[in-house]
Amino acid sequence: MKDNFEMPETMTKEDVTAMILSAKKQAGLTWEEIATKIDMSPVWTHSAAMGMNAMPAEKAKALVSVMGLPQEAASVLEESPTKVWEQAVPTDPCIYRLYEIVGVYGPTIKALIHEKFGDGIMSAIDFDMQITRVEHPKGDRVKIEMSGKYLGYNSW
Amino acid sequence: MKDNFEMPETMTKEDVTAMILSAKKQAGLTWEEIATKIDMSPVWTHSAAMGMNAMPAEKAKALVSVMGLPQEAASVLEESPTKVWEQAVPTDPCIYRLYEIVGVYGPTIKALIHEKFGDGIMSAIDFDMQITRVEHPKGDRVKIEMSGKYLGYNSW
Amino acid sequence: MKDNFEMPETMTKEDVTAMILSAKKQAGLTWEEIATKIDMSPVWTHSAAMGMNAMPAEKAKALVSVMGLPQEAASVLEESPTKVWEQAVPTDPCIYRLYEIVGVYGPTIKALIHEKFGDGIMSAIDFDMQITRVEHPKGDRVKIEMSGKYLGYNSW
Amino acid sequence: MKDNFEMPETMTKEDVTAMILSAKKQAGLTWEEIATKIDMSPVWTHSAAMGMNAMPAEKAKALVSVMGLPQEAASVLEESPTKVWEQAVPTDPCIYRLYEIVGVYGPTIKALIHEKFGDGIMSAIDFDMQITRVEHPKGDRVKIEMSGKYLGYNSW
Amino acid sequence: MKDNFEMPETMTKEDVTAMILSAKKQAGLTWEEIATKIDMSPVWTHSAAMGMNAMPAEKAKALVSVMGLPQEAASVLEESPTKVWEQAVPTDPCIYRLYEIVGVYGPTIKALIHEKFGDGIMSAIDFDMQITRVEHPKGDRVKIEMSGKYLGYNSW
Amino acid sequence: MKDNFEMPETMTKEDVTAMILSAKKQAGLTWEEIATKIDMSPVWTHSAAMGMNAMPAEKAKALVSVMGLPQEAASVLEESPTKVWEQAVPTDPCIYRLYEIVGVYGPTIKALIHEKFGDGIMSAIDFDMQITRVEHPKGDRVKIEMSGKYLGYNSW
Amino acid sequence: MKDNFEMPETMTKEDVTAMILSAKKQAGLTWEEIATKIDMSPVWTHSAAMGMNAMPAEKAKALVSVMGLPQEAASVLEESPTKVWEQAVPTDPCIYRLYEIVGVYGPTIKALIHEKFGDGIMSAIDFDMQITRVEHPKGDRVKIEMSGKYLGYNSW
Amino acid sequence: MKDNFEMPETMTKEDVTAMILSAKKQAGLTWEEIATKIDMSPVWTHSAAMGMNAMPAEKAKALVSVMGLPQEAASVLEESPTKVWEQAVPTDPCIYRLYEIVGVYGPTIKALIHEKFGDGIMSAIDFDMQITRVEHPKGDRVKIEMSGKYLGYNSW
Amino acid sequence: MKDNFEMPETMTKEDVTAMILSAKKQAGLTWEEIATKIDMSPVWTHSAAMGMNAMPAEKAKALVSVMGLPQEAASVLEESPTKVWEQAVPTDPCIYRLYEIVGVYGPTIKALIHEKFGDGIMSAIDFDMQITRVEHPKGDRVKIEMSGKYLGYNSW
Amino acid sequence: MKDNFEMPETMTKEDVTAMILSAKKQAGLTWEEIATKIDMSPVWTHSAAMGMNAMPAEKAKALVSVMGLPQEAASVLEESPTKVWEQAVPTDPCIYRLYEIVGVYGPTIKALIHEKFGDGIMSAIDFDMQITRVEHPKGDRVKIEMSGKYLGYNSW
Repeated sequence: MKDNFEMPETMTKEDVTAMILSAKKQAGLTWEEIATKIDMSPVWTHSAAMGMNAMPAEKAKALVSVMGLPQEAASVLEESPTKVWEQAVPTDPCIYRLYEIVGVYGPTIKALIHEKFGDGIMSAIDFDMQITRVEHPKGDRVKIEMSGKYLGYNSW
Repeated sequence: MKDNFEMPETMTKEDVTAMILSAKKQAGLTWEEIATKIDMSPVWTHSAAMGMNAMPAEKAKALVSVMGLPQEAASVLEESPTKVWEQAVPTDPCIYRLYEIVGVYGPTIKALIHEKFGDGIMSAIDFDMQITRVEHPKGDRVKIEMSGKYLGYNSW
Repeated sequence: MKDNFEMPETMTKEDVTAMILSAKKQAGLTWEEIATKIDMSPVWTHSAAMGMNAMPAEKAKALVSVMGLPQEAASVLEESPTKVWEQAVPTDPCIYRLYEIVGVYGPTIKALIHEKFGDGIMSAIDFDMQITRVEHPKGDRVKIEMSGKYLGYNSW
Repeated sequence: MKDNFEMPETMTKEDVTAMILSAKKQAGLTWEEIATKIDMSPVWTHSAAMGMNAMPAEKAKALVSVMGLPQEAASVLEESPTKVWEQAVPTDPCIYRLYEIVGVYGPTIKALIHEKFGDGIMSAIDFDMQITRVEHPKGDRVKIEMSGKYLGYNSW
Repeated sequence: MKDNFEMPETMTKEDVTAMILSAKKQAGLTWEEIATKIDMSPVWTHSAAMGMNAMPAEKAKALVSVMGLPQEAASVLEESPTKVWEQAVPTDPCIYRLYEIVGVYGPTIKALIHEKFGDGIMSAIDFDMQITRVEHPKGDRVKIEMSGKYLGYNSW
Repeated sequence: MKDNFEMPETMTKEDVTAMILSAKKQAGLTWEEIATKIDMSPVWTHSAAMGMNAMPAEKAKALVSVMGLPQEAASVLEESPTKVWEQAVPTDPCIYRLYEIVGVYGPTIKALIHEKFGDGIMSAIDFDMQITRVEHPKGDRVKIEMSGKYLGYNSW
Repeated sequence: MKDNFEMPETMTKEDVTAMILSAKKQAGLTWEEIATKIDMSPVWTHSAAMGMNAMPAEKAKALVSVMGLPQEAASVLEESPTKVWEQAVPTDPCIYRLYEIVGVYGPTIKALIHEKFGDGIMSAIDFDMQITRVEHPKGDRVKIEMSGKYLGYNSW
Repeated sequence: MKDNFEMPETMTKEDVTAMILSAKKQAGLTWEEIATKIDMSPVWTHSAAMGMNAMPAEKAKALVSVMGLPQEAASVLEESPTKVWEQAVPTDPCIYRLYEIVGVYGPTIKALIHEKFGDGIMSAIDFDMQITRVEHPKGDRVKIEMSGKYLGYNSW
Repeated sequence: MKDNFEMPETMTKEDVTAMILSAKKQAGLTWEEIATKIDMSPVWTHSAAMGMNAMPAEKAKALVSVMGLPQEAASVLEESPTKVWEQAVPTDPCIYRLYEIVGVYGPTIKALIHEKFGDGIMSAIDFDMQITRVEHPKGDRVKIEMSGKYLGYNSW
Repeated sequence: MKDNFEMPETMTKEDVTAMILSAKKQAGLTWEEIATKIDMSPVWTHSAAMGMNAMPAEKAKALVSVMGLPQEAASVLEESPTKVWEQAVPTDPCIYRLYEIVGVYGPTIKALIHEKFGDGIMSAIDFDMQITRVEHPKGDRVKIEMSGKYLGYNSW
């Protein structure tokens, strides 16, 4: 459309995500297997592959090699992402249930953090998470473990 | 204002919450201590005290006795709540960080649930949660553990 | 547009939906007839064809064969969907009326579930639905039957 | 506050709802029992008691008598309500699941109504609903049956 | 973009609307003239041409012939539309004034329908409308006449 | 609450509306009858009584006399109202249907006004409306007639 | 994309706006100069060039000739626009300040119009505007003059 | 409600606005007359009386004296207001028309400010406004004149 | 209203804010002076007085003593606040300008933080701020200095 | 798509931003280095490169030369931008923290500006900003310094 001047072509995080998803399907790998190959957790690996977290250089290189991506993809995986999510109220039932938990239990989590630590918050930046399947006779359960650094408010 | 007919007076969940908070302050109890006295977890105890969960009859009676509430309060604690939370995007920083985690990691949790279980969700109803303080040399950490039953989609 | 690197091409649920709709028009089939051919209900069949439900492998294969779709479409039909719907308030009158019913009768359904079962909900996951035409002298009626598993809240 | 002129005092639908809820608690009645006493369905009875539907004169009189309400309440129950519901996206999990069903299955219901009837809708006005508990070995189920008159679009 | 599998090409209501608008401009016809040629009202004809109403088969055929559209367009005109409109608050002044009238006079129309008919509504489905220019010495006036079937609420 | 200085007490349009509704109920009058007594249309009379239109002095006096309101009410009825309506998307079904009509037919009304008059709008200020019940063998119909002055856009 | 049937190509108001902006840049003209050449005000000329006002036939022809546009552009400039603006709260600081003025001074303008004219409004249709630069020792000032016909509310 | 500790009572801007409106009605004064008595413009006087602008000390004293307000009111009139307005899209037609003008002509005003001054804005702080009635044979017109200091963007 | 059971009375942060504002006015103190008396910064002091930050015990005691508040106020000042702010888009011009700065310069601040530190954020919890008046020949300037700890994202 | 008439091709601010980002990556420059080369601050340089500020002619020329952009880019960099930002509540955590600071400390900044200057605001137009990294034993800190001209409200 704009042929009177030349526009540069830049590989984006969306492009790299699409390449990873396609290579994963081709290779028949799970996220768990990919994470093991680059020696990181599945949660962080998926999140960085989706473009929601930046990768340290050696992990980016490892993923590029494991998935057979073009070299340029490594530098894109290292870039700081702009984290954008679509909707205030998510519509997908699997994600909505998490949002509902925050709505119902948010004030409870806040009260107990204040009780155990003082006036402050759990960091969402210095943060990690694990997801596991727990067997149970009445139906298996999803277990989500979050860990974030406590940050106390400043007085000055 | 309406004195030409007599309006009934009913104790609400908000009334009971206010009574509990006042009695707690008076007695100098923590949520952890209250929870221990009725032999339940602090998360569930706080949430039910806030009117966001219904109490089984014996737990309601126990709480009324522990906190010195009027007898009528027990039946109010047993009522099914209408769970209302204020805002699509919470403003309190402590609660907002949880919301941000759902925004950033929601699709990741969804992908790993599908990988580990199949097409389905983690229930927010058949659900429980624990919050603990974990000591750490670079600053203590908040640990949140959630467990919910896996529910698979029906085909029919 | 991005010709300095090669982007993968992946068939999406939207692509498969478009193929099904086109094949259906070509073949002059109704949803009822398609559902019968794969031995499932019309509600579930349409919903899965729209990409709002995942198909078990054998049903995906059956649909691909019935509609003459490419082989790759079967694996796409088996994928867990991300369920996205467009608007808080739907504008189409046929869908809006359902939304209005939830608005008007939602608290009533909630009250009667609590009365009949206790504190809990009707699952929207372990769920099925039938739609039928009922003859009536003053004008035929639409009958919608929903059935969902009762899930009681946890205390812990 | 306004004592230099006299303001009239009028019983509202909210007042009558509060009186009914209080009398119901006092008498220990269920909605099912109240509905039986006035010979109507529990869904409609609850909805009208909540002020979301108008009552025919004889049913209003019956309810006033059954619940021991003041005479003026009958005429209030007969008034046409202004149906207001609180939020585009309901937060209570029990009601939200219904909203989710409309989001996920709305286009499916629309497609099947058009297939079975032609271009039109299911009326939410000439409408009725039943809720029942269905026993099931893997956990009892909630059954919701809706029936609404089909209305075809006009051409002119 | 997707050249490793073949996507079907389907004529949509938007395509047919664009064809009609182009043919109308080419032929120099008014909506009034087009409506006369297919023996329907201008309001309904425009609305159906915009894809907001479905056409009966003979009217679709007539329009296709009058405007010189491809044969496939007739079946598209017969399809049940999904009625989508853009914004809660329309910005175009001509449409906004209608919205303002509903805001200002909505409760009045409701009160007078209840007074004249009982508890019910004016149908927007079994509905028709006429627009005419009325000469007036102080400036001509727009006259809009709407007629919709009264639907009374059910008790059950 | 503020007893260290004296606040003035002013009758508001809301106060007058409440007085009119109460007097109307007391007297058993319809809006049609009230309108006839002050020699105006029912639409305008209801709208002005709701505080959505200002009354000319003689009509305000007439209404005060007909309904037995305090003298001060007349000057309040004459005040220019600030027209506030509650929600972008009205929830009451009777009002929502009007809103839906504007959504579905708004662009059609705009197109036909432009065709009949040129570039301009129908005024919502120099405007009047009538509502009537029209008998019909298949069910009576609501008829709404709106008339507004055509206003053409300026060029300068 | 749709090569099995031929879609018409129509010049839109957006196309003409783009052509005017390009020709203006090429010719190094200001809006003031363009307005002078077609003997209209700069405000109206810019607004019509942006597609927010329709042009009378002779002005459209004049603009087409002055800017060297294709003949078809004249009929597009004459079409009644659908006025769409992007956001309830504009983000551009220059436009936001105008919005802020309406928020802060809106009730004041309303009060003074009612005081000077009676119950009515300033028309935004029979309306014109001038923008001028006024020299001032402490910094030049922007002067905006608006003039709109007073429209009084109808009683009927 | 809170009788176990004593709450202070403070006169607010809302209180002073109510006192001014009541005194104005009592005295039968117009805004124009009040403005003349304190030697300021009607626009600014009304805006400050509504609590949307702070008054210099001598003007606050003058207004208190002219309207017979309590002494404390003067210091309240001098306080910096928090300017709050109710809605993104105003519903009152008189105010909405101003909002519509900003929507339709905002980009035009921006373009002409940039053409006449450079990259910058018209200040809404160093700002004044006049409203006058202009006689006109086809109906009198409202004239609004705004003047704001031009502020150019910084480079650094 | 609820006289059949006794409700506790608790001093809230809103109550304490009102007491401080009243005592400040009475004593004729500035925020700068109050801050000096408790040996903290004016920004933090005002924010804690508004109930948006918790006070360490000794500072709470100092403020209670300086302002002559009741003893109970100290424990309220120490409580962890729930930080609630009113609107997505603030209407007060003084606050809006800050919001506009975040809108315009947010991506720039993000880019420079990433350039200087890596992938992470500036903490809003371990955070402080100073506001000063800087004299300037062309008009004095407001200087705002913010300092927040850099928090780097975790990989795990 | 529109091949029956020729559309002009214009370089936009988005195009220039993309060219700068690509050239920056190619050359391995930081924003700090680019800013130094054109002798401006990094904040302003990034903001203008993003299209959120206009560049004076000599700076535009300098940037075009430093980055090796086509000549036409200079005039685009000089154009007044329309500043559009995406969301009321930003989702990226780095930007959200700034938004949260405005929410929490906005009223405090307002109170202290009024205390130090009188009734007015800090300009966001006659404004500049610096971002620096400050070393700190407990973790380095981000320092943001803003400076804006004080603008006092007018009385007239």
